[in-house]
Amino acid sequence: MIKPGSKTSKHPSPHGRQHPSNPLKDKLHEIIFEADTPAGLVFDVCLLVAILASILFVCLDTVVALQKTYGLFFWYMEWFFAILFTIEYLLRLYCVKRPWRYATSFFGIIDLMSFLPTYLIAFISPGTSFAVIRALRLLRVFRIFKLMRLLNEADEMGRAILHARAKIVVFFAVVLISVCIAGTLMYEIENFGIPLEQRAHRQFSNIPEAIYWAITTMTTVGYGDIVPTTALGKVVSSMLILLGYSLIIVPTGFVSAEFMSIKKKTATTRNCQSCATEGHDSDAIYCKYCGEAL
Amino acid sequence: MIKPGSKTSKHPSPHGRQHPSNPLKDKLHEIIFEADTPAGLVFDVCLLVAILASILFVCLDTVVALQKTYGLFFWYMEWFFAILFTIEYLLRLYCVKRPWRYATSFFGIIDLMSFLPTYLIAFISPGTSFAVIRALRLLRVFRIFKLMRLLNEADEMGRAILHARAKIVVFFAVVLISVCIAGTLMYEIENFGIPLEQRAHRQFSNIPEAIYWAITTMTTVGYGDIVPTTALGKVVSSMLILLGYSLIIVPTGFVSAEFMSIKKKTATTRNCQSCATEGHDSDAIYCKYCGEAL
Amino acid sequence: MIKPGSKTSKHPSPHGRQHPSNPLKDKLHEIIFEADTPAGLVFDVCLLVAILASILFVCLDTVVALQKTYGLFFWYMEWFFAILFTIEYLLRLYCVKRPWRYATSFFGIIDLMSFLPTYLIAFISPGTSFAVIRALRLLRVFRIFKLMRLLNEADEMGRAILHARAKIVVFFAVVLISVCIAGTLMYEIENFGIPLEQRAHRQFSNIPEAIYWAITTMTTVGYGDIVPTTALGKVVSSMLILLGYSLIIVPTGFVSAEFMSIKKKTATTRNCQSCATEGHDSDAIYCKYCGEAL
Amino acid sequence: MIKPGSKTSKHPSPHGRQHPSNPLKDKLHEIIFEADTPAGLVFDVCLLVAILASILFVCLDTVVALQKTYGLFFWYMEWFFAILFTIEYLLRLYCVKRPWRYATSFFGIIDLMSFLPTYLIAFISPGTSFAVIRALRLLRVFRIFKLMRLLNEADEMGRAILHARAKIVVFFAVVLISVCIAGTLMYEIENFGIPLEQRAHRQFSNIPEAIYWAITTMTTVGYGDIVPTTALGKVVSSMLILLGYSLIIVPTGFVSAEFMSIKKKTATTRNCQSCATEGHDSDAIYCKYCGEAL
Repeated sequence: MIKPGSKTSKHPSPHGRQHPSNPLKDKLHEIIFEADTPAGLVFDVCLLVAILASILFVCLDTVVALQKTYGLFFWYMEWFFAILFTIEYLLRLYCVKRPWRYATSFFGIIDLMSFLPTYLIAFISPGTSFAVIRALRLLRVFRIFKLMRLLNEADEMGRAILHARAKIVVFFAVVLISVCIAGTLMYEIENFGIPLEQRAHRQFSNIPEAIYWAITTMTTVGYGDIVPTTALGKVVSSMLILLGYSLIIVPTGFVSAEFMSIKKKTATTRNCQSCATEGHDSDAIYCKYCGEAL
Repeated sequence: MIKPGSKTSKHPSPHGRQHPSNPLKDKLHEIIFEADTPAGLVFDVCLLVAILASILFVCLDTVVALQKTYGLFFWYMEWFFAILFTIEYLLRLYCVKRPWRYATSFFGIIDLMSFLPTYLIAFISPGTSFAVIRALRLLRVFRIFKLMRLLNEADEMGRAILHARAKIVVFFAVVLISVCIAGTLMYEIENFGIPLEQRAHRQFSNIPEAIYWAITTMTTVGYGDIVPTTALGKVVSSMLILLGYSLIIVPTGFVSAEFMSIKKKTATTRNCQSCATEGHDSDAIYCKYCGEAL
Repeated sequence: MIKPGSKTSKHPSPHGRQHPSNPLKDKLHEIIFEADTPAGLVFDVCLLVAILASILFVCLDTVVALQKTYGLFFWYMEWFFAILFTIEYLLRLYCVKRPWRYATSFFGIIDLMSFLPTYLIAFISPGTSFAVIRALRLLRVFRIFKLMRLLNEADEMGRAILHARAKIVVFFAVVLISVCIAGTLMYEIENFGIPLEQRAHRQFSNIPEAIYWAITTMTTVGYGDIVPTTALGKVVSSMLILLGYSLIIVPTGFVSAEFMSIKKKTATTRNCQSCATEGHDSDAIYCKYCGEAL
Repeated sequence: MIKPGSKTSKHPSPHGRQHPSNPLKDKLHEIIFEADTPAGLVFDVCLLVAILASILFVCLDTVVALQKTYGLFFWYMEWFFAILFTIEYLLRLYCVKRPWRYATSFFGIIDLMSFLPTYLIAFISPGTSFAVIRALRLLRVFRIFKLMRLLNEADEMGRAILHARAKIVVFFAVVLISVCIAGTLMYEIENFGIPLEQRAHRQFSNIPEAIYWAITTMTTVGYGDIVPTTALGKVVSSMLILLGYSLIIVPTGFVSAEFMSIKKKTATTRNCQSCATEGHDSDAIYCKYCGEAL
């Protein structure tokens, strides 16, 4: 179900094997960065459990009732995970070929951020404002990004999104234009004939508020904290709703077509014996590159 | 529209015919486990009606107003269905080759669970706590799982989901990461400058609550029980909404592509003996590449 | 954009021409049942406008404020449209070959229902209960079904849905099972420890109510009239939401694949000169039915 | 990511080069109407930033709290952008071959509307009603349409929607029929036995209101401002919800198929001169059917 990050694992390892290097370092690298050995798989599963458990404790720590009863336990668990992630970070630093490059990479920074706030809170002077401590405590939630290392199926999905990016820009531009126009119209319709000063206490109090309403409406979220009350407002919002309900069809269709064409290319694995090229259609008789019969 | 569970019906029947066995047992097996005979079809339709009716009575029994008036009728109906499902269970046990294997299978346990609670409630001592009786009563709703036996179209859909499972894991990981980050941000933004003790009585009272809000928002459910009230909170939730609104596109596109390739494979299974080409339509008589008869 | 109902128009007309019939009748039939002549198109557009306008007046007539001011005007318009639809009905009866068959068909009944309630209300005795009159008045809204005659693109969509019907049954069965289980669980979770009598005044007052909540939640409607208040209830509803959010992917993917395969078949219009068959792939060299070169 | 409007840029430029014209005019045309030169790209990015910034200030100007503090700054910014868009408009008028044609085109009018309201507000007599000034002020939001010039990926999407337009009409007709019928039913069900005069103060006060509810429900928006309260009303709304939840599948599937076939057509445009086959990949060197060089 979960495979190691392909880029991270494949890139440094060939170098590591070319040099006559430390066998412990090699072994560690294999366990930590690769998932195709049993030890590597066990490491990945343990890391997954540790990430999810540590996030859970950070979240539960903000529930006042639980914090009063289990506060000390949460504190011990926090230190347990902080030390665990510190060890993981140091091991990663030790076994990669270029520690500095890892330390400054996206995952290096995420790994560092997963334990640093815990130490900072501990060494902070008692006079520091509560808000700073709190912000630091909540930064620990960002260790959820460590999960991304365990996913490498995102590659193909990323490619489909990349191919469809121009369409996605158009899609978001249409959404942006729609919510701006609809928000402005609704602000004026719902407040028609009401002086500017009194509008502040009404539902569509200003255009940004009306745009927020338009976004929640067009995407079919529909909180209901702001709702149209005039007849014309209801007609305009019905039209916006129907636009949003049908607009999502277009990017869905486009991304489907994109996935299909990626799938088609990767599905045809026939090789030409003459020129060793791939990508021939299943109904091809001759190699399309060298002209030899397949 | 509804066909018998293919695995259950096809598996035991060839064995049943190899042995010189009881003709009544064979006949019963055909009626109960297979749907391609008229008697089997009638049995399946009756079972479907019985399942749905019994669920309906269990549900209506919890409506206080109806319970007061029709309570006794519901009780009789409950016993009627319990005895019906008992007979069905005993017949299934009788006519399968390996009763124990059936009894310990998923459907065997579901079948047992569909009548057992009714007997347990009847034979329970008056001193038993109300909660136990209630839990037992509600277990009867689980007989809805008996419906699954009547569906076998799920096979192909299951295969598409199975092929796309790695992508689905990535999809849910992105959702999980998004709701954790958004929930934590909103908890801090909406409660900025408010002491920890007072937060418990506010909307985003703690991170788990904020994550629950993030889930209802990102999936466009939007109950409106918890809504952002600050300007920055509205901006962040607008971004989360737009992410959720567009995120669903990616797995939809991928599953579409998966279904298409399954459809294509099952459609093209014929080879040309003369030129060995594939991809011939199921209605083709001659090879479309070399003109030889298929 | 809008074409005449293909079945209705093509079927009776060849018969009409075989017989040496009334030229007025033929001309009327062409105007009323076919849309490929200018007169027929004008008739269809007028009919569309009349249907939509008459529905609009029926709807506005229920707005108390408007009814007081424009009640008489609405009444005149109602009679205008009723007489118009009566004339249309009589003309249709007159020019079809088999009036009885038309009168008992789906569209014949819809056409009759579009003016009958107006006459019934007029000829009703003053002593009739208000509810009967009201029900009759509202039946007039059903004339919206007359719109369906103007649509014939529904054919291909109907075919895709027909092909996918077994999957749609599975999809709805999964939804049904999910909402039953989730509703029962939520009813018990949210009311845990509360006596049966007091539950009637709470949010999840009974299982049918809880199932209604589960439907609005799973489909991401999320009214917010019933919301979970317990921690466990929020966890269960989050899971139900995520299930509903991702479940819609499967039928979407399947219907996409279905449309694609229908499109593929209808897209290939190459004819074989030798055997006059259609449906050859764009890359076919020889006719797949007779083996002749295309 | 963003390309210049292909129609606008390609059409006038060849004419401009045929005539021995002003080199400054040519240079300006290239910068303003084309995006493939560095200067043109810089111009497009600046225009994008100016549009978004000016919209932001128009929106923030309606927030009473901000208006009081930064009102003067917003007013200066407004004039800055109005003058900027005036200069842009005059330059466009100057460098196009046919100024009148541009001035009366969609983008010409949008460009004019983006600065005209600002001047009108300034030159308006003090006695003019507040509503007129306000309407003029809000017209400035329509300058968001200037964004559309920067998008040309919409072409292909527009083509897919155009191909699917007949289906989209059917889809909207089904939605219209469903909401009319459901709205009327719910109006009657929820108000059953209640005199007409008292209905005005209830949730489903009239049919247009009930249709508005049906639209918000069917599209899964679910504000919760109007919710069914009767048992039968909840059953009907559950059915409408399930219809809306599954209806969106059909157009999604159809547009997917449309995109796929457009993608396929644009991918295969090469013919084999030797065997006249089509369907060769864009990277093919030899014909895959006869082996000749393409």
